Amino acid sequence: MPEETVGFIGLGIMGGPMAGNLLRAGYPLVVHNRTRAKEQELVSAGAAAADSPREVASQCDVLITMLPDSPDVEEVYLDSDRGVIAGAKAGQLLIDMSSIAPAVARAVCDAAREAGAEALDAPVSGGDVGAREGTLSIMVGGSDDGFKRAQPLLDVLGETVIHLGPPGAGQTAKACNQILVAVTIEAVSEALVLASKAGVDPDRLIEVLSGGLSGNRVMEVRRRNFLEHDFTPGFKLSLHHKDLGIALRTARELGVYVPTTAIVDQMLAALEAAGDGGLDHSALLKVIEEASGHEI
Amino acid sequence: MPEETVGFIGLGIMGGPMAGNLLRAGYPLVVHNRTRAKEQELVSAGAAAADSPREVASQCDVLITMLPDSPDVEEVYLDSDRGVIAGAKAGQLLIDMSSIAPAVARAVCDAAREAGAEALDAPVSGGDVGAREGTLSIMVGGSDDGFKRAQPLLDVLGETVIHLGPPGAGQTAKACNQILVAVTIEAVSEALVLASKAGVDPDRLIEVLSGGLSGNRVMEVRRRNFLEHDFTPGFKLSLHHKDLGIALRTARELGVYVPTTAIVDQMLAALEAAGDGGLDHSALLKVIEEASGHEI
Repeated sequence: MPEETVGFIGLGIMGGPMAGNLLRAGYPLVVHNRTRAKEQELVSAGAAAADSPREVASQCDVLITMLPDSPDVEEVYLDSDRGVIAGAKAGQLLIDMSSIAPAVARAVCDAAREAGAEALDAPVSGGDVGAREGTLSIMVGGSDDGFKRAQPLLDVLGETVIHLGPPGAGQTAKACNQILVAVTIEAVSEALVLASKAGVDPDRLIEVLSGGLSGNRVMEVRRRNFLEHDFTPGFKLSLHHKDLGIALRTARELGVYVPTTAIVDQMLAALEAAGDGGLDHSALLKVIEEASGHEI
Repeated sequence: MPEETVGFIGLGIMGGPMAGNLLRAGYPLVVHNRTRAKEQELVSAGAAAADSPREVASQCDVLITMLPDSPDVEEVYLDSDRGVIAGAKAGQLLIDMSSIAPAVARAVCDAAREAGAEALDAPVSGGDVGAREGTLSIMVGGSDDGFKRAQPLLDVLGETVIHLGPPGAGQTAKACNQILVAVTIEAVSEALVLASKAGVDPDRLIEVLSGGLSGNRVMEVRRRNFLEHDFTPGFKLSLHHKDLGIALRTARELGVYVPTTAIVDQMLAALEAAGDGGLDHSALLKVIEEASGHEI
């Protein structure tokens, strides 16, 4: 039976089911969400609720956050009045599983160390399905000791849990993941529109391309979205645009040349400006279709 | 026991083993190669040799060509003196398995029809290993009747044989395959250099990225090439550059927007200009490394 009390802040489409999995695994749980109503389901299932991130921190041994973006993480951790760090204790482990800028992850880690606590960045891939089923891929940055202590908890939440390096390394890996997914969606879109406008059936094209060196998971998992123009998310385009912003900012800081990432980011920007931010990221196809005057 | 005599022109790194597989499957074989010495191995194994493409055509029921580029195909088929069409017979089936421009494939098909013969474009993916082992993916354009007649032969050469549409459709699909592979290599390269310059181990990055939506065959098959900078081909960068030239020309003819294809084509052009055309296409990594001042 797990003995450490776990705090969980951010009970959205990802965080809610993740917290539920920890509760079911037997961890005593203290939760908090900005929209307090979202705490109810977990409280009914046995969790305690706390009034602020600071109070969660003061009531748990290990704290997990799952928030939308870098500014949210900065506020939840660093707010001098209500923030996690203000309530942090020596020896506490803080695990941020949001997808944010590696630089912000390092700032949180530094603040945690000053408070005598330890922070890990541990963003995930695998979406809401992975969150519900506990099959996420978890990319961890931080110290070896912190990783070892977090491992049993993270094993409840994910299937692949990999320690990639020092603080920020998890976020860097997540940014790389988002580059690869976005650029692959774009490449598939270019291929589909070229083939279709040339008279080749897109469904058969995907079939033949899946068998070779061109095979990829995007084409497999999003096949129906592309072919039926069903852009129900899945993963929202606006979130992917945010993530490529992180990738580009990181590349700029480090001096890394990422030309196809930059182009695809611009396409996501155009879709978002046109009001399509709520669509699935496979809607990148629309940019190619519209610029080519041809729907597949 | 197969009864149709097969002609085979172009006995290079791909065509040689493919012709050998047909011979082993029992097809009577007539071969020709520009460098005549390359015919010897097949002749020793039981094939007949002919002095020109025209003579091959006059001695076979089904003719297969496997040549480097569009101009080679034009010369071998359309040369009025020594070409295939000059020797073609009514009812003959001509299968070009080279990777060339869809427009040239359609021109060959038209010339074949005027001679009373039938032509298919049937480019492949799977490389020299697939050619030797008979596991190629074969993308076929042309008539239904032509496809049906070719199928038993193509099943000897490949594992996945798919009819994609009218003449040129096979070449269009091949161009799409090459777009997807090249852009994926580029995306993997951007991710690897970004991660590595940020201090993340590239090997662990590939491990974690392989598990999710970012997973792809390029990362799996070329993993060692990337990590060890082993750019022994594999598939030569100069050939991939040729193939993206076909993709871009086709996109221009049809009016299709393919921005990441265009960028990656420019990178391949830069590598070729620098004398790297003989390297494996995974050497795209070098462009990103050099522009980022960082080797992974």
